[in-house]
Amino acid sequence: MLINVERAARMLKEYDYYLILSHANPDGDTLGCAYALCALLQKAGKFAKCLCADEIAPRMKYLTTGIQPQEFEHQTIVSVDVADRKLLGKLNEVYGDEVFLAIDHHRSRTEFAEFTYVEPDAAAACELIYEIAQVMQIPLDEQIATCLYTGLATDTGCFRFSNTTPRTHFIASKLMEYGFPYEDINYRLFDMKSKGRVRLEQEIFEKMEFYCDDKIAIVCLTNELMERHKNSVDAEDFNGLAGMPRRIEGVEIGVTIKQKEEKVFKISVRSSEEINASEICEKFDGGGHARAAGCTIEGTLEEVKAKMLPELKRAVGCGE
Amino acid sequence: MLINVERAARMLKEYDYYLILSHANPDGDTLGCAYALCALLQKAGKFAKCLCADEIAPRMKYLTTGIQPQEFEHQTIVSVDVADRKLLGKLNEVYGDEVFLAIDHHRSRTEFAEFTYVEPDAAAACELIYEIAQVMQIPLDEQIATCLYTGLATDTGCFRFSNTTPRTHFIASKLMEYGFPYEDINYRLFDMKSKGRVRLEQEIFEKMEFYCDDKIAIVCLTNELMERHKNSVDAEDFNGLAGMPRRIEGVEIGVTIKQKEEKVFKISVRSSEEINASEICEKFDGGGHARAAGCTIEGTLEEVKAKMLPELKRAVGCGE
Repeated sequence: MLINVERAARMLKEYDYYLILSHANPDGDTLGCAYALCALLQKAGKFAKCLCADEIAPRMKYLTTGIQPQEFEHQTIVSVDVADRKLLGKLNEVYGDEVFLAIDHHRSRTEFAEFTYVEPDAAAACELIYEIAQVMQIPLDEQIATCLYTGLATDTGCFRFSNTTPRTHFIASKLMEYGFPYEDINYRLFDMKSKGRVRLEQEIFEKMEFYCDDKIAIVCLTNELMERHKNSVDAEDFNGLAGMPRRIEGVEIGVTIKQKEEKVFKISVRSSEEINASEICEKFDGGGHARAAGCTIEGTLEEVKAKMLPELKRAVGCGE
Repeated sequence: MLINVERAARMLKEYDYYLILSHANPDGDTLGCAYALCALLQKAGKFAKCLCADEIAPRMKYLTTGIQPQEFEHQTIVSVDVADRKLLGKLNEVYGDEVFLAIDHHRSRTEFAEFTYVEPDAAAACELIYEIAQVMQIPLDEQIATCLYTGLATDTGCFRFSNTTPRTHFIASKLMEYGFPYEDINYRLFDMKSKGRVRLEQEIFEKMEFYCDDKIAIVCLTNELMERHKNSVDAEDFNGLAGMPRRIEGVEIGVTIKQKEEKVFKISVRSSEEINASEICEKFDGGGHARAAGCTIEGTLEEVKAKMLPELKRAVGCGE
């Protein structure tokens, strides 16, 4: 059942003994939500603890420091930033059908909780935790503000992506009044790269293929390449590579071809304002957004490229 | 004479025939200020035009589109984001001693205008133009909001740097209500890199020297290296390289050694929270901020490194 922020806040005041679940492969938003909500509930005199199927990356450990560890048997399960119970990872089997309240901001999602408070226009689920704190009238503090800010920054690429709203900046301005080292947070989230990641990016750039006066750039992430870098690169370091080709000046369509099986490739297409990435991917039974879309194509790498190239060239208006 | 925002706004209402000067090598803040103020004054029924000693980079041309070209002889000169008249470049000789009103946010500056409205706590001079528009009660529009947002984003590294304040985010939230393609602006300002820049960064990374378990990273920008990349890299592309070494995970002190003359090197030191970069640079008669400082050292490159290394090692607490 869908509920609004007032009802969600009222429920959180009424119940107790909370177990807060983040999605697997946790990011700054799901963790920021969990640790902020946990601290807020503890401040309100409740028992609360957080749980996630996977470990928290060292660079996000600072999110966990504001919580009092409490021993208790949980009675009320809340999920944060979880669009589908499957995304709970290995916790799905144990808790997936017991979630009382889901707090989320994903537009496409499946209902799995008894009650759901969802705001698809929110850039980050942490915006919803902020709204809940306002309604519950629990004062924030530096640590809670740190958690909520981390969620906003994570999901908006530090206020760069198109999901950022006036409300996102307004909440950021309120959070910043609590004074926390946002420069270090942003450094950890956005600037810092492992040596292994830099080497991986170097090799990807060296092998990047350009067509049509650099308007098209293609990157191939083959199993061989991933395997070779596996030992010097964390799993997390393989994220975000799909953005690389479009970053080169002049590139209007950036394509990342990622090998899934011997002859199955997952394609990610990023495009400039003028070009509809979704239309390109629909030709291959895929889809997505106008500026970022995807599809899956079968064949050898050369066959996959040969299938795509005419569509890409047509999109940038470049003669064969 | 220092004046406040009310007085600055009153003056701008009173006078007319404005020439607005940006600093040389213009960035998004000085240009954002100039084109926003020009549009605001034109909206208020005044004559106004912008001037800069240097050309506007193609990726910032979008800032200029909201202005009506007006032919007139100027009577009132306003400078924006100019901390010293020398920074006007070749315009200094012509207009440097005729500036009526300087609008600026630099902490260390020299007075050169008849009247100066300065707010050293503002992250960007564009914040001051926003305040002036509020006091003058001239409504903003999409194009003015675009200019002001560009200034905020430029000077804060898209809200990442420590100069960002609650007010910066608050103004950003107000500007975003006018709806403009901020995602594209941020892409152009922060994500996009020329092929030449990527190749330059690659070579710099390959030659980066690490000491003390990667806690220290040193980059050398020799004349030979700069010369070799000169043809494939714009002058602008040589900016921002000083941030590179500190971006590698684990690096606590990132040092960039830039050759100025055969045996003169300019050093830039960036450090983690725990380390005082300014203290290190003071040992070599330099200085700056706690996390970003600089100095100049004479000698061969090897001599310069040999002079610095003991100080760097001491700072990270690593035995010789």
